[in-house]
Amino acid sequence: MIYEDWVREELRELSRSLSFQYTPDEEIENRLVRIRTRMGKEHLEALLVVGKMNSFYLSGTAQDGFIFIPLEGRPFLMIKRELERAKVESPIKDIVAFKSSREIPLLVQGYCSKLPVSLGLELDRLPVKDYFRFQELFPNAKLMDASVVLRETRKIKSSFEIDLMKKAGEIGKRVYQKAKRILKEGMTEIEFGGLLEATAKKWGHEGLLRVNSLNYEAYTWHVLSGLTGGIVSQSDSPMGGLGLSPAFPVGASLKKMKAHEPILVDFGTCYHGYQADETRMFSIGRMKQKFIDAYKACKEIHDTVLGEARPGADCEAIFMKTLKLAGRLGYKDNYLGPPGLQTHFIGHGIGLELNELPFIGQGQSYPLEGGMTLAIEPKIVFPGEGSVGIENTVAIAEKGYEILTPVSQEIFQV
Amino acid sequence: MIYEDWVREELRELSRSLSFQYTPDEEIENRLVRIRTRMGKEHLEALLVVGKMNSFYLSGTAQDGFIFIPLEGRPFLMIKRELERAKVESPIKDIVAFKSSREIPLLVQGYCSKLPVSLGLELDRLPVKDYFRFQELFPNAKLMDASVVLRETRKIKSSFEIDLMKKAGEIGKRVYQKAKRILKEGMTEIEFGGLLEATAKKWGHEGLLRVNSLNYEAYTWHVLSGLTGGIVSQSDSPMGGLGLSPAFPVGASLKKMKAHEPILVDFGTCYHGYQADETRMFSIGRMKQKFIDAYKACKEIHDTVLGEARPGADCEAIFMKTLKLAGRLGYKDNYLGPPGLQTHFIGHGIGLELNELPFIGQGQSYPLEGGMTLAIEPKIVFPGEGSVGIENTVAIAEKGYEILTPVSQEIFQV
Repeated sequence: MIYEDWVREELRELSRSLSFQYTPDEEIENRLVRIRTRMGKEHLEALLVVGKMNSFYLSGTAQDGFIFIPLEGRPFLMIKRELERAKVESPIKDIVAFKSSREIPLLVQGYCSKLPVSLGLELDRLPVKDYFRFQELFPNAKLMDASVVLRETRKIKSSFEIDLMKKAGEIGKRVYQKAKRILKEGMTEIEFGGLLEATAKKWGHEGLLRVNSLNYEAYTWHVLSGLTGGIVSQSDSPMGGLGLSPAFPVGASLKKMKAHEPILVDFGTCYHGYQADETRMFSIGRMKQKFIDAYKACKEIHDTVLGEARPGADCEAIFMKTLKLAGRLGYKDNYLGPPGLQTHFIGHGIGLELNELPFIGQGQSYPLEGGMTLAIEPKIVFPGEGSVGIENTVAIAEKGYEILTPVSQEIFQV
Repeated sequence: MIYEDWVREELRELSRSLSFQYTPDEEIENRLVRIRTRMGKEHLEALLVVGKMNSFYLSGTAQDGFIFIPLEGRPFLMIKRELERAKVESPIKDIVAFKSSREIPLLVQGYCSKLPVSLGLELDRLPVKDYFRFQELFPNAKLMDASVVLRETRKIKSSFEIDLMKKAGEIGKRVYQKAKRILKEGMTEIEFGGLLEATAKKWGHEGLLRVNSLNYEAYTWHVLSGLTGGIVSQSDSPMGGLGLSPAFPVGASLKKMKAHEPILVDFGTCYHGYQADETRMFSIGRMKQKFIDAYKACKEIHDTVLGEARPGADCEAIFMKTLKLAGRLGYKDNYLGPPGLQTHFIGHGIGLELNELPFIGQGQSYPLEGGMTLAIEPKIVFPGEGSVGIENTVAIAEKGYEILTPVSQEIFQV
């Protein structure tokens, strides 16, 4: 059998029978209109997008390649591997094979009839060696940073995107239900986390959580029990856990979970590239009153943030309000990290990546907008003892918000 | 409790009780000697290492920060988060907190008494915006590419590193034993893969496989059954599988596994950052003779590569020999991919990342050396039908090789 024929004739049907949803034409059209509006304002004559999630967002395919978007004229996709599959997946009309970056200027000339004088690139993630290469290939173009154009375009989600995040949230619900059924004294954090991940995958969770960062790695589970919940590590997060080794010093460890400890499960799920992030508390038997009280405080802070969450609300103002509230509730020194190591945000935008706009935090003075999706996660940390918290992913709606992670917000005591 | 006191007093003991191994002093010393020899040859006065795995390799900690290595004088670590933990994890003596890159030149001045005139950076992974920042911070330094210096230093593994890879291989053995016990007709590829991953994690597998690439993402499992084994996707690999969506179009899918199909399980494990990569074949009932024959051919190619594997053997010559052998065995068009989409390597270096030196492939004319570790993976692909293959991770020893993935090489028929 000829591979290309098989892909053309059978891949789409096979994929659909196994729950694949392709990005609709009009969805890509809308995204292109929005990004071009921003390109125009920044005087970008063209965009060459190489980062996988940016390229997927604009083309509907994650096959290996680049999308070229002229301010005027039709965008085209250059695909290294695999061309026929990209044609099945992407609504973009012009899709062409290429083997080497050397071919790019000729392809641009062919599709757009001229080379751009200003070319936007993702300078926040593009490696330097690739940048030098593009300088050689486009010697007459001014290479400009298009990171902000892309981040700003992606920060407002369509209903197509929010529906996929809801499906990720539904997978999360199954995970937490399973967690309640299988949690047992003496099980290690990592064994528990692994079984939760297996459950999530069975229901379509894609395993990798993506993040735009050189060194920050996202992973599915944070299972922290008792004192591991009080350990900080490598990322700008209230707690990191012990992890499995100095090479992977975050998340679940080989520590056995004990009765009466606060067990924090921070679990992200991913469906069709779109993520939902969620935290719930568990305990085997009743946890100490101190932790129950702190959890109630987290819940109050969480609900206060949601009470403010609507288009127009200022992100930094919301954060400052939670600082005051945490202080009034008696958690000034333990809110968002151990004393001296406290983080300065309680919410992060989420979608195809875990660190999208907006951030609800210090220095983030801009308004919430309808269609933004973000995870709200107040946490309280007691070094040497444990931590508690709650997290939900929400979409900002016209008059408020919608929760995308529909799990009971009680402490799950088994 | 004061967090810093707790970390200083209790973290090391807790970690050791939960199987943490720290990189020994002499291991770091040896690595520094080797990298400085290369730095000297390249006229690099200093190295500023920011990539997580390069930095971990040279410091023993994966906490968020940079290591600065002068050609002469003591290296020092700058840590953003978390300082006390880095001090527990790293044998480097000088470890200092920093908050902003603005502080780096002053710190360098303080520790080294002068700023370097030539500074090596990882231009293969450093984002452009960070490069521009370092240009501002070191206006009088020539910024040079240190990617090769780092790749070449890391390509030869110590016995400490190889022992960790063996432990990853032992986790792999448990995974394949479990696979044989749980494989059942009607189970989906992803459900099966998820349960294997849960098993691996229970035994210390760290979940994330790391790779040095902007867009190539490593993940633990490739479970491909029947026709999904004949699908190519996004990476330079003989087959990619269907995956779960256009956003994650590789690896296991929601397809149910059927009797008599060839089921290829390509599963990587990671212990203390060090990876082992392995492929075995499964079937529910006997697979068609065509696939059994093709598997025997893969095994013969695999054994031929190992027969050549010793210090001094040329990597490209080994690859060309396998091409000839595959042709003689009747698989010219299906060896390493479907006709027209065949890849050009059958082995890749492996260690902290999945794409290290050496490669056994076209254009890779250099000798194998003792201490190199690599995965050998001949595969044969039939589009529309399925694929077969075998993969083992080996270390090149003084007089040959040692297999680090000790699982039976028979087809696992259940």
